[in-house]
Amino acid sequence: MRDVAVIGVGMTKWGELWEKSLRDIFVESALEAVKDAGVDRIDSMYVGCMTSGLFVGQEHLGSLLADYLGMGPIPSLRVETACASGAAAFKQAVIEVGSGVSDIVLAGGVEKMTDIGGDGATFALSTAADAEYEVYSGVTFPGLYAMMAVAHMDAYGTTREQLAAVSVKNHANGAKNPHAQYPFELTVERVLNSVMISDPLTILDCSPITDGAAAVIVCPLDMAKGLTKNKPIKVLASTHATDTIALHSREDIAWLGAVAKAGELAYKQAGLSPSDMDLVEVHDCFTIAEVCTIEALGFFERGKGGASAESGESAIGGRIPVNASGGLKSKGHPVGATGIAQIVEVTKQLRGEADKRQVKGAKIGMTQNMGGTGGSCVVHIFGAE
Amino acid sequence: MRDVAVIGVGMTKWGELWEKSLRDIFVESALEAVKDAGVDRIDSMYVGCMTSGLFVGQEHLGSLLADYLGMGPIPSLRVETACASGAAAFKQAVIEVGSGVSDIVLAGGVEKMTDIGGDGATFALSTAADAEYEVYSGVTFPGLYAMMAVAHMDAYGTTREQLAAVSVKNHANGAKNPHAQYPFELTVERVLNSVMISDPLTILDCSPITDGAAAVIVCPLDMAKGLTKNKPIKVLASTHATDTIALHSREDIAWLGAVAKAGELAYKQAGLSPSDMDLVEVHDCFTIAEVCTIEALGFFERGKGGASAESGESAIGGRIPVNASGGLKSKGHPVGATGIAQIVEVTKQLRGEADKRQVKGAKIGMTQNMGGTGGSCVVHIFGAE
Repeated sequence: MRDVAVIGVGMTKWGELWEKSLRDIFVESALEAVKDAGVDRIDSMYVGCMTSGLFVGQEHLGSLLADYLGMGPIPSLRVETACASGAAAFKQAVIEVGSGVSDIVLAGGVEKMTDIGGDGATFALSTAADAEYEVYSGVTFPGLYAMMAVAHMDAYGTTREQLAAVSVKNHANGAKNPHAQYPFELTVERVLNSVMISDPLTILDCSPITDGAAAVIVCPLDMAKGLTKNKPIKVLASTHATDTIALHSREDIAWLGAVAKAGELAYKQAGLSPSDMDLVEVHDCFTIAEVCTIEALGFFERGKGGASAESGESAIGGRIPVNASGGLKSKGHPVGATGIAQIVEVTKQLRGEADKRQVKGAKIGMTQNMGGTGGSCVVHIFGAE
Repeated sequence: MRDVAVIGVGMTKWGELWEKSLRDIFVESALEAVKDAGVDRIDSMYVGCMTSGLFVGQEHLGSLLADYLGMGPIPSLRVETACASGAAAFKQAVIEVGSGVSDIVLAGGVEKMTDIGGDGATFALSTAADAEYEVYSGVTFPGLYAMMAVAHMDAYGTTREQLAAVSVKNHANGAKNPHAQYPFELTVERVLNSVMISDPLTILDCSPITDGAAAVIVCPLDMAKGLTKNKPIKVLASTHATDTIALHSREDIAWLGAVAKAGELAYKQAGLSPSDMDLVEVHDCFTIAEVCTIEALGFFERGKGGASAESGESAIGGRIPVNASGGLKSKGHPVGATGIAQIVEVTKQLRGEADKRQVKGAKIGMTQNMGGTGGSCVVHIFGAE
């Protein structure tokens, strides 16, 4: 395998983008990535999208988006592993470039979630759970993550206030991100007093419904300097693991086995450990998810992640900055695009271009993107060259 | 890239499988492939599926199916490019093995199409077209292919009877395939007199709505002999191309540009030409589709494909046997599984295990799987070692 580098990034402002369609926002982010890299061609494309069939009645996104980007007849493929589809698209791009099949590959992610009416978005998202054993029984994601939260609180004494502090920290970071859907600050009190969704999670513990797209360009590391003026960001690890799709099949519902596995493989691939990471973007679809992922990735001991935000350890400037971008909570969560946006953030951080939310001197960063309640997880580690 | 070989194949009987769920049929075909190969592990999985979200309310198939196959925590990813999803899953497996990332990879395809009520299947399939410019205007796939048929008849004098002969030929082959959904013979008269769907196409010009799954196992060619007792089938070419998603955007709607491109790249990769192929499985979602694909792949001159079945040239025993399996028409078309089943057929043919439909002395075979009206196309060439 050849070494692979990220040489271009782009993303749209995320939010409720009523005036734009799925193809519009994808093309906008892809053109920004192409322009940022400064390349004059793409050899192949991967598109991460969870369920455009249910959200906007459109599948076959690979061809549609290559066509609208003016890139046909290049190969262009959509990949899906629920909310980890974006990172999975990136992983396929890395393998394609690493293998020598292609040189310049675009990995993008997109989801247009606000065009569907009624409770359509809740149903569309529920298809990431086990339809036959979870959804038919009436549970959707807020309920599943609420059960994980209760289990964590019960086993480790994690408090309601500690979960709220995760949201407060991520909104403080997101307030400094011009692409964020909700770039405003919160207080613990406001999180606690917001409307209850599924006890103990209030609406301000939950990531929002978002329209958005993001794209990155990868190429062989040894070609990067000839192709772009940007500082190449090297891919040090690219891993993917799965767990049971249903939460009830797991031995411990407060532990994310696929995250632990993908993390372990990533550290091994890179020859690094958690203490080598200067920052990490994790999948905080709910506040409890951030707590569980930072434990599974080894940044905090099992059961000790609850205090991470309250203590300041996971803030920008803390021991391990978690979700400097604002995370899914503040930046938004257009599910198929989230994994790519995490890579956009780490690339900007390692280039030193993250403005007010810059993690000082960041040289190595990690992204962790997961599907469902952690039934799939994709982890990447990046290093500034 | 390492050379890659197919070492195991499996597929379920296709049809209206009311008693089985999507996960049941996938696991059935995957276990058959594992048993056929004789391997004791899988390192990674790819699942081709077009739109399980719309058909059965279930996404996140990568994790679901790895879980139900008992293979977690291995990486497992769903890929989608409409009706070419199966072949795309196989292509990703080839890249992953070729690159050295994994050794033993399962590529499967599945679609459960009969569980959806009313006109749900027609809507679900329509998402492979351009939703905003084709589907919103009221056209679905029978209409799109009917326009292609009219254009071909108008430009080249292709007759209604010639199209019917494609269906007759494929049913004659499918009658010899124990996995086929409709294993019975037809006559030209019966095709012509069957119910009109979209002029000039009658229902017996159209592939059916099918439940089905198929799976294959690939590994590095140089490991094949140590892993399996089967004759390894070498992957000689693996290519993918795209075209405009909308039919109206093309210069000639009777010509399949992505098929021609993917075919041209495949011949180049393999160092072979159309005359070297001993058989080909093509994407006959409608009779006219077979006519257009065999022209685009260079087996017949542009405009001359219409007479292929009527003349006997595309029959088993003819100059170039097309769809010895029965094709999508007789075997069935569970969209995400079709591309994998084509590979199952060519593997069996090259192993000499195709029973009554065996193409004598077959050494080299091709598969061609496409999405939509040819907005995407994936082509493979295989050789018996």
